Amino acid sequence: MGLTEIRTAMKVDLKKPAAEQPGLHNRWHPDVPFNGTIKNGEVVKIECVDWTGGQIGNNDSADDMKNIDLTKIHYLTGPFEIETAEPGDVLVVEIQDVQPFQEQPWGFTGVFDKNNGGGFLAEIYPNAAKAIWDFEGIFCSSRHIPHVRFPGLIHPGILGCAPSAEILAEWNRREGELISTNTDSSIVVAQPPEPQNVHAGSASDEIKAKVGKEGARTIPGRPEHGGNCDIKNLSRGSKTYLPIHVKGAKFSVGDLHFSQGDGEISFCGAIEIAGVITLKLTVMKNGMKDLGMKSPIFLPGPVEPHYGPGRYLTFEGFSVDHKGKQYYLDATVAYRETTLRCIEYLKRFGYDDYQIYLLLSCAPIQGHVAGLVDIPNACMTLGLPMDIFDFDISPSGSATKMDMGTCAFTSK
Amino acid sequence: MGLTEIRTAMKVDLKKPAAEQPGLHNRWHPDVPFNGTIKNGEVVKIECVDWTGGQIGNNDSADDMKNIDLTKIHYLTGPFEIETAEPGDVLVVEIQDVQPFQEQPWGFTGVFDKNNGGGFLAEIYPNAAKAIWDFEGIFCSSRHIPHVRFPGLIHPGILGCAPSAEILAEWNRREGELISTNTDSSIVVAQPPEPQNVHAGSASDEIKAKVGKEGARTIPGRPEHGGNCDIKNLSRGSKTYLPIHVKGAKFSVGDLHFSQGDGEISFCGAIEIAGVITLKLTVMKNGMKDLGMKSPIFLPGPVEPHYGPGRYLTFEGFSVDHKGKQYYLDATVAYRETTLRCIEYLKRFGYDDYQIYLLLSCAPIQGHVAGLVDIPNACMTLGLPMDIFDFDISPSGSATKMDMGTCAFTSK
Amino acid sequence: MGLTEIRTAMKVDLKKPAAEQPGLHNRWHPDVPFNGTIKNGEVVKIECVDWTGGQIGNNDSADDMKNIDLTKIHYLTGPFEIETAEPGDVLVVEIQDVQPFQEQPWGFTGVFDKNNGGGFLAEIYPNAAKAIWDFEGIFCSSRHIPHVRFPGLIHPGILGCAPSAEILAEWNRREGELISTNTDSSIVVAQPPEPQNVHAGSASDEIKAKVGKEGARTIPGRPEHGGNCDIKNLSRGSKTYLPIHVKGAKFSVGDLHFSQGDGEISFCGAIEIAGVITLKLTVMKNGMKDLGMKSPIFLPGPVEPHYGPGRYLTFEGFSVDHKGKQYYLDATVAYRETTLRCIEYLKRFGYDDYQIYLLLSCAPIQGHVAGLVDIPNACMTLGLPMDIFDFDISPSGSATKMDMGTCAFTSK
Amino acid sequence: MGLTEIRTAMKVDLKKPAAEQPGLHNRWHPDVPFNGTIKNGEVVKIECVDWTGGQIGNNDSADDMKNIDLTKIHYLTGPFEIETAEPGDVLVVEIQDVQPFQEQPWGFTGVFDKNNGGGFLAEIYPNAAKAIWDFEGIFCSSRHIPHVRFPGLIHPGILGCAPSAEILAEWNRREGELISTNTDSSIVVAQPPEPQNVHAGSASDEIKAKVGKEGARTIPGRPEHGGNCDIKNLSRGSKTYLPIHVKGAKFSVGDLHFSQGDGEISFCGAIEIAGVITLKLTVMKNGMKDLGMKSPIFLPGPVEPHYGPGRYLTFEGFSVDHKGKQYYLDATVAYRETTLRCIEYLKRFGYDDYQIYLLLSCAPIQGHVAGLVDIPNACMTLGLPMDIFDFDISPSGSATKMDMGTCAFTSK
Repeated sequence: MGLTEIRTAMKVDLKKPAAEQPGLHNRWHPDVPFNGTIKNGEVVKIECVDWTGGQIGNNDSADDMKNIDLTKIHYLTGPFEIETAEPGDVLVVEIQDVQPFQEQPWGFTGVFDKNNGGGFLAEIYPNAAKAIWDFEGIFCSSRHIPHVRFPGLIHPGILGCAPSAEILAEWNRREGELISTNTDSSIVVAQPPEPQNVHAGSASDEIKAKVGKEGARTIPGRPEHGGNCDIKNLSRGSKTYLPIHVKGAKFSVGDLHFSQGDGEISFCGAIEIAGVITLKLTVMKNGMKDLGMKSPIFLPGPVEPHYGPGRYLTFEGFSVDHKGKQYYLDATVAYRETTLRCIEYLKRFGYDDYQIYLLLSCAPIQGHVAGLVDIPNACMTLGLPMDIFDFDISPSGSATKMDMGTCAFTSK
Repeated sequence: MGLTEIRTAMKVDLKKPAAEQPGLHNRWHPDVPFNGTIKNGEVVKIECVDWTGGQIGNNDSADDMKNIDLTKIHYLTGPFEIETAEPGDVLVVEIQDVQPFQEQPWGFTGVFDKNNGGGFLAEIYPNAAKAIWDFEGIFCSSRHIPHVRFPGLIHPGILGCAPSAEILAEWNRREGELISTNTDSSIVVAQPPEPQNVHAGSASDEIKAKVGKEGARTIPGRPEHGGNCDIKNLSRGSKTYLPIHVKGAKFSVGDLHFSQGDGEISFCGAIEIAGVITLKLTVMKNGMKDLGMKSPIFLPGPVEPHYGPGRYLTFEGFSVDHKGKQYYLDATVAYRETTLRCIEYLKRFGYDDYQIYLLLSCAPIQGHVAGLVDIPNACMTLGLPMDIFDFDISPSGSATKMDMGTCAFTSK
Repeated sequence: MGLTEIRTAMKVDLKKPAAEQPGLHNRWHPDVPFNGTIKNGEVVKIECVDWTGGQIGNNDSADDMKNIDLTKIHYLTGPFEIETAEPGDVLVVEIQDVQPFQEQPWGFTGVFDKNNGGGFLAEIYPNAAKAIWDFEGIFCSSRHIPHVRFPGLIHPGILGCAPSAEILAEWNRREGELISTNTDSSIVVAQPPEPQNVHAGSASDEIKAKVGKEGARTIPGRPEHGGNCDIKNLSRGSKTYLPIHVKGAKFSVGDLHFSQGDGEISFCGAIEIAGVITLKLTVMKNGMKDLGMKSPIFLPGPVEPHYGPGRYLTFEGFSVDHKGKQYYLDATVAYRETTLRCIEYLKRFGYDDYQIYLLLSCAPIQGHVAGLVDIPNACMTLGLPMDIFDFDISPSGSATKMDMGTCAFTSK
Repeated sequence: MGLTEIRTAMKVDLKKPAAEQPGLHNRWHPDVPFNGTIKNGEVVKIECVDWTGGQIGNNDSADDMKNIDLTKIHYLTGPFEIETAEPGDVLVVEIQDVQPFQEQPWGFTGVFDKNNGGGFLAEIYPNAAKAIWDFEGIFCSSRHIPHVRFPGLIHPGILGCAPSAEILAEWNRREGELISTNTDSSIVVAQPPEPQNVHAGSASDEIKAKVGKEGARTIPGRPEHGGNCDIKNLSRGSKTYLPIHVKGAKFSVGDLHFSQGDGEISFCGAIEIAGVITLKLTVMKNGMKDLGMKSPIFLPGPVEPHYGPGRYLTFEGFSVDHKGKQYYLDATVAYRETTLRCIEYLKRFGYDDYQIYLLLSCAPIQGHVAGLVDIPNACMTLGLPMDIFDFDISPSGSATKMDMGTCAFTSK
C-alpha cells in the first residue's frame, strides 16, 4: 500500500507521426499483432492519438480539413491481448475516465469538403470548415463559435475487438455488394479495403500487406463487434458488453471525443482529441450465448450532464425533404430535416450556417426517434440544450442578430 | 372567486359511435367546420375518444385488432376556432394535464395484421396481437405482459392546425407521387384521400364529400403543421409552437396515449386511450416569421419519469439487416435491428416475441441516433429502462425463463 | 372486464362541516373506530378535506388565517381496517395518484399570526398572510405572488397507522415533559391532548371523551408511526413502509398538499387542498423486525419535477443568527438563516417579505444539510429552482424592482 | 496557438511537511501574506495537500486517526491576490475541475476518537476508525467497506476570502461567548485561536505570532465568507459567489474531497484527498450590494451523478432522541436519528456500525429537511442511493448477513 498508480498499457507520442508508432493501427483485421497483454479484471490507462493522427492544427484555417488524407484514419491503440478471452466470450469494458492530455487542452470539429469525406449535410454545405475548442476543466468553448460553453460528455468513438477471419470476409462481402450495386456516382457509399497508408502496428511486411488487402476500414461501426459507433453515452461510468471473436480478444480503442451530439452530423463532428482513457476490462465467459447477444449492449454511466427535460428546445423533422420530395419512413431524411430546422432557428441570432453545422455535430444534442410507423412519414426530433448558450434562445419572438465572428474556412 | 372549474370546450360520448358525434372528424381539410371557439390565452378541457373510435375491446382476443377498419381513423376532437389567429401566426399549446376517463381506466396496445395496417416489424411478426393495460393512478400494468409496470408519460399523439388549401394540395401531390412511383406491391407506402367513412364533423353533405375526396389522412405527421407526430415528450408541462395556416387556426387534438416508446413501433403501439386533455392556447402574432419556423418546435415539460442514465440497458443497431444485407446510412433499418436485438434479449426471460413487440411499442424506451455519418452504417440505440421490470434484467449471465403467460391473439 | 373503476373507500362532502362527517377524525388514538375495511393489496381512492376542514376561503383577506381555530386540525380520513394487518407488520403504501377535486381547483398557503400558530419565522414575520393558488392541470400560479408558476409535487402531508395504547402513553409522557420543563413562556413548545373540538369519527360519546383526553394531536410527525411528516417527496409513485401497532392497522391519511418546499416553513406552508388520493395498501408480515425498522422508510417515485442541478440558485446558512449570536451545531438556526438570505435576495426584484415567505413554504425548494460537524457551525443550504420564475433571477448584477402586487393580509 | 497549458498558480510537495511549505496556511487572518497573484478572469490550477497535511497513511490501522494533531488543520493553499478585487466586491469562483494527484489515487475517511475531535455520533461511536478508498477514474471503492462503489462528486470542502480585521474580531467575540457560556464540560463547543502549530504561510515571525493569537480556526464555515462549508455540490461546473472583505480578496482553497455525504457526519467524513483544482476567478464589482448578499450563494454544476429519485431509499428522523427525550424542533437531533435508522437498516446485511458510519459520511447521501414547523418535532430525511451497492438493499424482507470484513481500527 501507499503511493500506487494505475498502469499505462500503451503510451503514444504526440510529436511523432502516428504511422511510425507500433502501438497504433488503422484497419480491423485478426492478424494485426498484439500490442501488450492486459489481465482479466485489470484497470489500465491507454493513451490515444486523435483519429486523424495529428493532421489537424490549432489554427484559423480549414485548409488542413479540406486536404485531409482519409486513407490514414482512424488510428487506434491496440490491439491488446486480454488474458483468458476466447471466442464466444464477452468483454465487459467499464470506462472509468477519459481525459485530454494536459499539455494539449484543445480539440477540433470539422466539416470535410464534399469531395473528400463529405458529411450529413454535404449536399447543402459542400465546403470545408473548422472550429477549435479550448478546454477549461470539464468545459469547452470555441473562438470560432462564440456564446456557447458546455461540459464534455467525454468518450471514445471507437471500442471493439478484432473480427474473426470469417466475420471480416462477411463484412467485405456485404459492403462490396453495396458498392457494386450503387448507381449514384456522386456518392461514396462505402469504403473497401485500402492498402494505401495501411498501419498494422508491429506487423511484418507480409502481414501488413495482407491487412492492407483485406482489412476492414474503421469508418463504419458494425453489428458484430461495435467499432466506430460514435455513441456519445459511452462516457465515464459506462459499461459496454463487447462480443469476442478471436483468442485474446484483440481489443482496440481510439477516436476520443471531448463531446459529440447525436448523429455526429458533420462526420468529423465530435470535438476530436488525443488523450488517455482509463478502462477496466473483464471477461464474461460464454457471454455471447448467455446474453443472447449479436451486437454490443451497454449501460451508460450515472454522471451525464443533465439540464432537465424542459431545458431542451426541440425541433421536429419528417421524411419530406427540403425540395418537397416525399420518402417512405426514412428516418435518415427526417433527421436531416430536423437539423436544418435547427440551423434556420439559430441563424436568426447571427450565427453562420457552418458555425451551427459544427455546433450541432459536437454539442450534447439529443436526437430521438419519435414515430417510425405513420406512413409515409418518419418523425425525428432534435433536442438542443438551451443552457449551453450564454444568451436566451427560447422561442419568445423575433431575434436580435449578434456579431458571431466566423468559424475557420479554407484559404480561398 | 370561490369554487370554479375549467371550461370543457368539447365533450364526447363513449357509448355513442364516433361517426355520429359532430364534435369529431377524421380527415385534415380546411373546410371541416369549426366546433366551438376558444379565447386567445384560455385554458380549456377537451375530451377525446381513442384513435379507433372504440373499435377495440377490453378482452383477451385480438380479433378486433385484426379486423379493424382503418378508413375510420383517427377520430380527432375539433377543429376549434382560436380567436385572433391568422395565417402566419403561431399557436402556443401548453399541455397542462392529460387524464384517461375515470370510468375507463384502461387502454390497449395492438399489433395489426400484416395485410391490414402492418407495423414496423410486420415482415417478421405478421399476425395481429393485443395487450390491455390497466391503470392505477399514474401507473399501468397488463395481464398480457406480466412483471412490468411503469408510470405513463401521458400525451396526445396528434396536435395540429388545419392546412390551407395550398398546403393540402401539396400534401396530395407529393404523397401521390410516392404512391405512383412505388414498385413494391407488397407494401402500402402512403394512404391517398379516402371517401369511405369520412367524418367531417358538422359539415354539410357537399362539404363532407369534398373532404372525403381531398382531405388528407391523419396517419402521417407532416412538416407544415405537425399532426400525428407521436412524440412521447409532448406530455404534461410541454409547450408546442404550431404553425397556423387558416383564419381561426382550426386546431384539433386526439389520439391520446397513456404511454409510448420512441418509434411507437407496432403502429397501434402506444397505450391508446380515450380521455381529457387540458390545454392553454395562446396566439403568437407573426410567430412563423419571428421564429423562422417551418415545422413545429416544442419544449418538453419538467415532470418526465426519470430513472437515471445508468438504469437504461441500451442496445445497438446498424444498417445491416438480419439477412445480412448492407444498407447505406439507413437509420430506419438500424432502428429496426436495434428493436430485434432487444427482443432477443428479453425472450431469454420467457416472454414471447409478440409480448415484447407490444411492450417496446408502449413502454418509455429511448430511441436515439448515435452515428449517422460513418458510411455505410447508421448506428441507432434503444435504451430500455430496467426499473419497469419487477425482476432484474441486467446483463449478469444466463437468464431464467419464467412463465409469462400470453398476450391476446386472434381466435385461430 | 370492460368499464371498471377503482373503488372509493371513503367520500367527503365539501359543503358540510368536517366535524359532522363520521369518516373523519382529528386525533391519534387506538380507540377511534374503523371507518371501513380495505383488502390486503387493494387499490382504493380516499377523499380528504383540507387540513383545516374548510376554514380558509378563496378570497383576498387573511382574516380567516389569523382567526383559525387550531383545536380542530388536522381532519384526517380513516382510520381504515387493513385486512390481515397485525402489530409488528409493515403497511406498504404505494401512492398512485393525488388530485385536487375537479370542482375546487385551488389551494391556499398561509402565515399564521404569531399568537395563534406562528411559524418558522414568526419572530420576524408575526402577522397573518395568505396566498391563493389556482391550478391549471399540474401547474399552479397565484394572483398573490405574480411571476411564478410551477408543477405540483402533489402529496399527502400525513400518512400513518394508529398508535397502540403504550405508544400513545409514551408520546404523552415525553411531550408532556418538554412542556413542563419549558421556561420560555413566549413559545408553545408542544400541544398536549385537547378535548375541545375533538373529532373521533363515529365514536360513542364515551370513546370520544377518552380520545379527547388522551389522543395525541396530529401536528407533529412522530418516529413510531410517521404521521405529519410533511415530506414533499411522498408523491405519485412513492412507496412508504409504515409500522403497524394495532390489529387492522387503523390507517389514516390527510392534509393533502398540491406542493410544498422542504421545511414547509410558514407552517400552513404547503399549498393546502382538499382532494382524492389513490393508494395501494399491502401488508408485509413481520416487516418491522425483518426490516429492522423503528420509523417509516420510503422510496420516492420516478416522476418528480426535475430542472437540472445547475438550475437551483442555492443559499447558505449557518448557526449564527441574524443578531450575531453563535449557536452550537444548530441545524434549525442554520436553516432559518438560509431562508432569510433567500428572502433578502428575492426582495430586490420587488417582492414583499411575506410574499417570499409564503413562496418558499410551498414552492419545490430543496433544503439540504451541508456540514453538521464543523463546530460550532452547522451549514444548511436552500436550493431555489430558477425556472419557476418567468423572469431571470440569476445572480447577474443589480436587480430591477417590478410591481409585484401584494399577498392577502388581515383587514387592518 | 498550439500546445498550451493552464497555469498552475501554486504547487505543493507531498513529500515535504505541510508546515514547511510557504504556499500553505492554516488560520483565517487578514495579515497572512499573499502567495501570488491571479488576474481577474484567469483560469488557474491550484494544488492542495489533504486537510491534515499528510498525517493519515494508506494502511489498515486507525492509530494515526486517533492520534491526529488537530492544531495543524486545515492546511489551505493561498491566499491569492485577485487583481482589481476590493471590499464589497464578489469573487465568482467557477470550479472547472478537481482531480486527485495521479500518483496518489486514494483517499481516507475517518472517525476521530471522542476525546480528540469526535464527530456527529461520537456519543454512540467513541472510537477511532478509518477506511481507505482507492480510485479507478471517477469511481472509488474501499477494502474496508466492501460491496460499495460510486462515482465521486469531487469538490473542495473549503473556499473563501480572508476576513477583514473587523469581521475576524466579530468571529472571535461570538465564538468566545459560546465557549464562555458553555456549561457542558464533556463537549468542545468551539475552538478559539490556537498559537500552537499555526502556519501563516510566508509571514514574518511577528505576523505569524499575531495570526496565532488572533487567527480564526478553519474548522467552522462562517456566514460572512463561507470557508469550511463542506457542501458536496460545489463540484465541477459549480459557480460560487464569495463576499470579498479585503483588498485583493486573499482567496484560499483546500480540504479537497473525492466525495462526501450531506452532513459529513464523521467529521473526517469525506474521502479526504490531496489534489489539483482548476478554477476561473472573476471579480463582480460591488457584487455584495448588487446581489443583496450577506453569505455566499452558488449554482451547482450540471454533471452531478444522478440515479433517479426512485433509487434513493429514504429514512426518516425526528427530534426525539434514541433515549426517548423530546426536543423542540431540533433539526440536528432529527438528522442524527435519521443516520441511526440507516445504520440499523444496513447492519442487517453484515456491516459493522463503524463501517456504515464511515460510509454515510462519504457516500453521496442526500440529507433533506422535511418539516421544520410541526411542534415539537423536526423531521429530516436521509436518502441513500441504492445503486452504489453491488447487491440489492431494497426493503424486500429479511436480510442475509454477508461477510463484510472490517474497517481499520486502532491497534488495541
